[in-house]
Amino acid sequence: MKRKAVCLLSGGMDSSTVAYFAKESGYEILALHFSYGQKTEEKERNCARMIAESLDAQDFLEIPLSYFSQIKGSSLTDPAMAVPAHGEENKDLPTTYVPFRNANLLAIATSYAEVQSADAIFIGVQASDYAGYPDCRPAFIEAFQKAMDLGTADTTNIKLVTPFLSFNKTDILQKGMELHVPYAMTWSCYQNSDRACGICSSCHYRMEAFAHLKISDPIPYEENSSR
Amino acid sequence: MKRKAVCLLSGGMDSSTVAYFAKESGYEILALHFSYGQKTEEKERNCARMIAESLDAQDFLEIPLSYFSQIKGSSLTDPAMAVPAHGEENKDLPTTYVPFRNANLLAIATSYAEVQSADAIFIGVQASDYAGYPDCRPAFIEAFQKAMDLGTADTTNIKLVTPFLSFNKTDILQKGMELHVPYAMTWSCYQNSDRACGICSSCHYRMEAFAHLKISDPIPYEENSSR
Repeated sequence: MKRKAVCLLSGGMDSSTVAYFAKESGYEILALHFSYGQKTEEKERNCARMIAESLDAQDFLEIPLSYFSQIKGSSLTDPAMAVPAHGEENKDLPTTYVPFRNANLLAIATSYAEVQSADAIFIGVQASDYAGYPDCRPAFIEAFQKAMDLGTADTTNIKLVTPFLSFNKTDILQKGMELHVPYAMTWSCYQNSDRACGICSSCHYRMEAFAHLKISDPIPYEENSSR
Repeated sequence: MKRKAVCLLSGGMDSSTVAYFAKESGYEILALHFSYGQKTEEKERNCARMIAESLDAQDFLEIPLSYFSQIKGSSLTDPAMAVPAHGEENKDLPTTYVPFRNANLLAIATSYAEVQSADAIFIGVQASDYAGYPDCRPAFIEAFQKAMDLGTADTTNIKLVTPFLSFNKTDILQKGMELHVPYAMTWSCYQNSDRACGICSSCHYRMEAFAHLKISDPIPYEENSSR
């Protein structure tokens, strides 16, 4: 029987590339998508669905996490807070930080993986994130793996796989081009509009990666973006 | 300013006693209640509300976690699975086990505590649970504390407090009687009925504790229960 991997699939570049990487590594894909009241919820869901279909995923579990809005504290989920432009962020901790988000997502992924007897969880955390987001640090990932090992049944062995932990966005894109990831089906921008804003941090890093590799990004950007 | 503690308050004996313990230790209480599609959802919510009010809690955050039903795998949330009687359970892992549940609840509690600048999280995990539930093991709690330390902002310091980890149900009840916990406002039974069934594991341990201390339990039980 083929090994199974729960893949956290947001619909962005990193998670889509990770899911393609898991498939190439020989896993059947169980796609896990979260909508947590972020402004770009519908766009991300559509992208995640398309990527999951393109990977012939065995399951697509969409989990609504309304509680991040109840808890508040992040510009991604709090309508009263503006999404900052790249370079305008708080140096210590960006307002786009959803407190302890990855731990929440990984806890759910572990519950799902244990019920499905999956062998692994793939998540696209990566280097350029963990300067600002503490729950992207390699040490956090290690600690969480230990919590998974101790907090699940003794017969359960789920490996937390973070293939791009030491990658930057350009490395990820490079890998994704080798894997033929359909980047037209991915969405990175923090703003909810037809075209990516080209101004927020997420757009900034995506555009930078495409520019570094001298390839053109298949998604549309605002005319007046910094692209 | 008084220290603040997020208290996981299910409405059962253990969590109610823990919340009283936190209050006595000098904390303001931020009550956090989860409804995760368990059969006794409404009953537990009412009990948790009453206990929070009796503690003059600063906040009562109720978070609906419908995803445990989406993930399935536990008799507490899956309508197709029967809640077993005490002694009829699977020896290795009870069907009442919701996979990795405590990790999910603690991840949310940590997000909430970080946004609220709380100093501690109190949870009523205890000894007689961790034989069957891996996410009640002391080693799991330690591992999760480490994940909290590494996965939150460097300026955030939240202590995970489990005062009853080495207690059994009788020890908890003894402590609760000293703290004048109103046990009439608590619900333990896994079944959803007006009177506690007296048959499920949760009733079994509660009844045993009251019997050990030779005090009478203020909640009503079924006539034909093993009490």
